[in-house]
Amino acid sequence: MSIKNLASINQSFYKKDLISIDQLDPLSIQIIFRTTQHIIDLLQKNEGGDILKGVLATLLFFEPSSRTFSSFAAAIKRLGGVTVEYQNPTTTSSTVKGETLEDTVRVFENYSDIIIMRHPMTGAPIRAAQAAHAPVVNAGDGSGEHPTQALLDMVTLFQRFGRVDHLKGVIAGDLLYGRTVHSLIKAFAMFEGNELYLLSPPELSLPPELMKEFTKKGIKLTQLETEKEIPTDCQFWYWTRVQKERFSDIKEYERVKNRYVVTPELLKERGNKEMVIMHPLPRVGEIDNRIDSDPRALYLTNQVKNGMYIRMALIALIMGKL
Amino acid sequence: MSIKNLASINQSFYKKDLISIDQLDPLSIQIIFRTTQHIIDLLQKNEGGDILKGVLATLLFFEPSSRTFSSFAAAIKRLGGVTVEYQNPTTTSSTVKGETLEDTVRVFENYSDIIIMRHPMTGAPIRAAQAAHAPVVNAGDGSGEHPTQALLDMVTLFQRFGRVDHLKGVIAGDLLYGRTVHSLIKAFAMFEGNELYLLSPPELSLPPELMKEFTKKGIKLTQLETEKEIPTDCQFWYWTRVQKERFSDIKEYERVKNRYVVTPELLKERGNKEMVIMHPLPRVGEIDNRIDSDPRALYLTNQVKNGMYIRMALIALIMGKL
Amino acid sequence: MSIKNLASINQSFYKKDLISIDQLDPLSIQIIFRTTQHIIDLLQKNEGGDILKGVLATLLFFEPSSRTFSSFAAAIKRLGGVTVEYQNPTTTSSTVKGETLEDTVRVFENYSDIIIMRHPMTGAPIRAAQAAHAPVVNAGDGSGEHPTQALLDMVTLFQRFGRVDHLKGVIAGDLLYGRTVHSLIKAFAMFEGNELYLLSPPELSLPPELMKEFTKKGIKLTQLETEKEIPTDCQFWYWTRVQKERFSDIKEYERVKNRYVVTPELLKERGNKEMVIMHPLPRVGEIDNRIDSDPRALYLTNQVKNGMYIRMALIALIMGKL
Repeated sequence: MSIKNLASINQSFYKKDLISIDQLDPLSIQIIFRTTQHIIDLLQKNEGGDILKGVLATLLFFEPSSRTFSSFAAAIKRLGGVTVEYQNPTTTSSTVKGETLEDTVRVFENYSDIIIMRHPMTGAPIRAAQAAHAPVVNAGDGSGEHPTQALLDMVTLFQRFGRVDHLKGVIAGDLLYGRTVHSLIKAFAMFEGNELYLLSPPELSLPPELMKEFTKKGIKLTQLETEKEIPTDCQFWYWTRVQKERFSDIKEYERVKNRYVVTPELLKERGNKEMVIMHPLPRVGEIDNRIDSDPRALYLTNQVKNGMYIRMALIALIMGKL
Repeated sequence: MSIKNLASINQSFYKKDLISIDQLDPLSIQIIFRTTQHIIDLLQKNEGGDILKGVLATLLFFEPSSRTFSSFAAAIKRLGGVTVEYQNPTTTSSTVKGETLEDTVRVFENYSDIIIMRHPMTGAPIRAAQAAHAPVVNAGDGSGEHPTQALLDMVTLFQRFGRVDHLKGVIAGDLLYGRTVHSLIKAFAMFEGNELYLLSPPELSLPPELMKEFTKKGIKLTQLETEKEIPTDCQFWYWTRVQKERFSDIKEYERVKNRYVVTPELLKERGNKEMVIMHPLPRVGEIDNRIDSDPRALYLTNQVKNGMYIRMALIALIMGKL
Repeated sequence: MSIKNLASINQSFYKKDLISIDQLDPLSIQIIFRTTQHIIDLLQKNEGGDILKGVLATLLFFEPSSRTFSSFAAAIKRLGGVTVEYQNPTTTSSTVKGETLEDTVRVFENYSDIIIMRHPMTGAPIRAAQAAHAPVVNAGDGSGEHPTQALLDMVTLFQRFGRVDHLKGVIAGDLLYGRTVHSLIKAFAMFEGNELYLLSPPELSLPPELMKEFTKKGIKLTQLETEKEIPTDCQFWYWTRVQKERFSDIKEYERVKNRYVVTPELLKERGNKEMVIMHPLPRVGEIDNRIDSDPRALYLTNQVKNGMYIRMALIALIMGKL
């Protein structure tokens, strides 16, 4: 593919919103992978520090999120962009005064080249994108989507295996409420030959309608009853946290929260040398600390770094800077 | 007027505080208009991004204010300045520990070229300006003043009509507590031949002493009883929000809050083609959403953008950078 | 000492943590003094604004602290670095979700060249430094240490007297809980011939074990009973606040809080022309406002400015930029 064609493909992101992983296709995901790698290469050579020069991004976080917030902030600032930062504005002035989400977004877009939005309410970023002329990136909306999380997970696998098709992996934890997991399975379903083994307490298993929807897209999903059934030739184990805040009954939570834990013993029994261990973080015991120094553990390193890189790539593409 | 004279007039802002619209006169307001337009022109040509290079502005916000805060932040950062940002510090360390406002400001000025202050207490910015050697800009103090709001409103009218004298307009909503409105009427009173029609629930009408004070300055103020009396040849309608937080009785608030609403019907009946519709925002129903796409509606666009531009101009003048 | 040797000594800070004043020795403190003066000289000439270009510092503040936070932020930004700012994250996402301090720090270090940490829990920065590969600077941990505060106090004395040995001074206020004072006495103990006179309510006097520990290091400490006993030839008076938050009984606090106050009268009686008056701030009455304009009063000026300069020097050294 010629450089000229690449440029025109990159154009497909120009000034566009990114609200859902559904907006992407295998080609656009590959563009993001390639742009991410390009940025990593530039930074390695101490270049690229002004890719976002002149860009002002507003971080409109209606819900606290230390890690996503700082990942976006670092992505923008390391490339020479500037930010207007608003954290948790549900308790602040305009919202308290009764302003609509649409008005708030339309005000902020006057100062902003791009708006990064986190909101506790599913669907809020779509409303924002419809109201705004400036591009809006969804940084997580309630139990909805978190597309940049799915992208960082995919790019992490791509870096390790050179592909995101024909992979076999386990996805464990909360498959009922976990938006990260839903976006991720959607992304896997776009590529051929992926097989996912699902491991969750029965109370938190993937809803049948989602199981059906994803399967229809061609991905092979298998529900496991116990960790003893994990195939020993998986390329990845993707563990997630059981979210305390989803349970009204604390005892129920305590009972299921650490039903499945990655331990050195389990890894020895069901793992293999080539696989990687992933987690979207924060974790609260689902992965034993003794795993942290294992070179297969990517959750505190590659995944987090790739979170910043993928956001750099995405914003640079949307701003037409790469 | 020669360039040299202009420079010396601009000097009148150099390292000065801006606490009240009363400090300004028609000439200094025109300097701000001209500097604002100059900055708009530069940014249009992708220039001016380093006008505030080397300038550190501290945003000392003792009260939440999403829109004013981000407008100042964007103004500074888009011109290459940097900020130290403090939001809502009434709940934070030093103030809780019993430090005086004067001490707090004197500490922050050691790091700062300029201090932008928002405070719930009327008069706090004057105390700050008296304590500090660094220039202090009032970003709103209780029921006191909000001079940059009045300036952005004036520059918005100037852009549209080429003048801020001999204008006729309606000012509606809360004329009792609204600091925005008081600063704005003061600004109008500085220029010849302006006529303002005041429309408010009787409970929220302009206090007689202010009516007298403003009238003495030469502005023509007329109290309307109903929207039916709005002259059809107004250049602008300036609507404001009835502030819920001013009412101890919520029923009282509900009764008056949307007494006057700009609707397409009212606009058709009492408006005209050349007029503009303004609002300091946030709005909570005073202007019907259907008006938003009307080219005469400037509240979600020109006014907000001009807020940033006027603050750019003001800070650049105070810092001696233009 | 040749330039080459200097460079190799500066290397002793490169990518190192600074958690406690105990890590420093007289030579390294002198390097900080010299680097601080070098930066002051550069800024005087409008140079140095890009010393930290390309550096991203994360301010991880698990406890509110307006003054230390903004001093670090200003230090980094004035030298061209950028920040990811997290204030008070105990109430935010990851911590609430049950993440360990170690995990939090390891996540943030992926985005950061250096981490500045404030924490209400003594020892938290050590845990962070052990978990992180990125260098960690302690910005105050509970009743533990606050090394940059001690350094700014020392450099302030060095600027005035050309030395930090053979000085005589008073340290007054809360000597029991005051971490600032403990770090400062440790720093004085590293240099020969310093004599400190301690003035505190009996309930807040220096713990005997610390008195013993410091004295063993060679510093001369003398407990005073009353301000009448202050030697009239002191080089400095270092006053501190009695911290309300340390008292469970508010009456007890009220009784001791302003037991010792610097007044013009006391200064006239026990002071001298060459001495300086210092305070780590915030103050709540321990130094009479009438002292503020006295040229010997350094608490609202030199000390605060030096706080920024010393942090500039320290970060530049750790980042290998000077």
